[in-house]
Amino acid sequence: MNAPVKEPEVLISEVGPRDGLQSVKATMPTAQKLRWIDALAASGLREIEVGSFVPAKLLPQMADTAEVVRHALTHPGLTVMALVPNVRGAESALRAGVHKITIPVSASAAHSMANVRKTREEMIAEVRAIARLRDEVAPGVKIETGMSTAFGCTIQGEVKEEEVVWLASECIAAGADEVGLSDTSGVANPAQVRRLFNKVRGAIGDKTGAAHMHNTRGLGLANCLAAWDVGVRTFDSSLGGLGGCPFAPGASGNVVTEDLVFMFEAMGVSTGVDLLALIAARAAMEAGLPGEPVYGMTPAAGLPKGWAQGVVAA
Amino acid sequence: MNAPVKEPEVLISEVGPRDGLQSVKATMPTAQKLRWIDALAASGLREIEVGSFVPAKLLPQMADTAEVVRHALTHPGLTVMALVPNVRGAESALRAGVHKITIPVSASAAHSMANVRKTREEMIAEVRAIARLRDEVAPGVKIETGMSTAFGCTIQGEVKEEEVVWLASECIAAGADEVGLSDTSGVANPAQVRRLFNKVRGAIGDKTGAAHMHNTRGLGLANCLAAWDVGVRTFDSSLGGLGGCPFAPGASGNVVTEDLVFMFEAMGVSTGVDLLALIAARAAMEAGLPGEPVYGMTPAAGLPKGWAQGVVAA
Repeated sequence: MNAPVKEPEVLISEVGPRDGLQSVKATMPTAQKLRWIDALAASGLREIEVGSFVPAKLLPQMADTAEVVRHALTHPGLTVMALVPNVRGAESALRAGVHKITIPVSASAAHSMANVRKTREEMIAEVRAIARLRDEVAPGVKIETGMSTAFGCTIQGEVKEEEVVWLASECIAAGADEVGLSDTSGVANPAQVRRLFNKVRGAIGDKTGAAHMHNTRGLGLANCLAAWDVGVRTFDSSLGGLGGCPFAPGASGNVVTEDLVFMFEAMGVSTGVDLLALIAARAAMEAGLPGEPVYGMTPAAGLPKGWAQGVVAA
Repeated sequence: MNAPVKEPEVLISEVGPRDGLQSVKATMPTAQKLRWIDALAASGLREIEVGSFVPAKLLPQMADTAEVVRHALTHPGLTVMALVPNVRGAESALRAGVHKITIPVSASAAHSMANVRKTREEMIAEVRAIARLRDEVAPGVKIETGMSTAFGCTIQGEVKEEEVVWLASECIAAGADEVGLSDTSGVANPAQVRRLFNKVRGAIGDKTGAAHMHNTRGLGLANCLAAWDVGVRTFDSSLGGLGGCPFAPGASGNVVTEDLVFMFEAMGVSTGVDLLALIAARAAMEAGLPGEPVYGMTPAAGLPKGWAQGVVAA
């Protein structure tokens, strides 16, 4: 029943080892992180955010990121990404050999101060400094800015779309290669997702990056579908829905990678990910995070009768 | 912050008191059913499937449907709907005074035999007989056929789209006023939803009825969005996700009415339903079903900061 291999049409960017782990209390031992990443890579995922370069005293669970990066680099074809909040982090990331850096920038002025204690303008300056450093020491490395609170903010409420467009343009002007939009507080709706991605694309064209949607109010996949409809081809998600902002019982913050891959593959949109291998990767994650809630409806329900990945249902 | 009242653009058809209750073990006392329906009606819901007319020995929890119908009829503006599997049930439903009858018809030949012990052709004959009866005794009553397993079947697997289109046309020819499509086993994907509703609309035009999607694999809202995109304006769902086929822990079978209303209202699509009143209606349901799992991410997460129903986020 296996279909011929199709070229992937979307890039699923797995954020669990960074975004996910930063949201849980436990610190996963390095050896277990490596096994988890191995299992993720074995499923066919082509991009993984493996950690962040931040002071170890602030985030002890990220203290081993350089080692994790070095291990992840042994997987051929895998884009190894790390989060850095500033130039200092970027120095460490480039030294470790990452392929891609992601920098968090808040669309909401209030969230920017609360999250990184910098104004949005100061973060743009940081992006510029990181891009200069990259140009000097590792010009092949890609820089993404992930724009948090792009769809609304728990602190200030509404975020004006023209400010999102302005900030996206400023990030590109500062040297970023792409700008993703994040629904940090899980308030986005499909109409807004389509409108905002269209506006941002109008300003920065093909430098429009990933949709990072949350499932806080159950709309994660609907919002990914909406983003797909307007041409977004990179989607952030995490295995088992780890991380994000899980203040709703039964609700993951991050979109569940397994359900996202199921949606696209069922639609006949190739992800390059083997869904059964992806579901099997949950065991490696769970082994390192005993007792942590893990989400995902497709793993619980199982695959439909007659499921043959890559074949469009007739 | 209240916006001017907008005319509803979609019809949310609440199926909890029938579809939901049939899936739980407990039998809800009549008085509590009535309070639940009162609370649903008070939230602004304009259509409720309040029960089914089937032999009480088969489904004791539906034994009081005639009484429930008579009570529901006291709510002005509410369309009171009941499920009937055959002419005998239709006689009881019409006698009780329902506004609308829904008849289950399976797209899958295998599911038809398993569910109602009749072939699809025999069910079409049943629809014809019910329509004749309706024409004689209550010509104002609407007949919907709800086509289960339209997107796939747990018994036979794939269901051919041309058979769905054929069956929809036959139901209309037999006298049904509308045909809804149900994702009984939770296998539908958004591309398929768009394709199949378009095909059915091509055959039966505006007699194309509700999207009855399940959230088994997390795609319930994405599939509702897909149906909305191709012109569907009636959506079945149940308060707290009661019922459907909840074999996935943490997954409701039915789409959760609260999350569905949140999605549409956040998109600026008026449902006519007051989301806070809808969430409040959960208490009336829970009182009658102690210990029963109740789903819904929006009720758990709460409404976003600055939420003002009916106002499109700028």
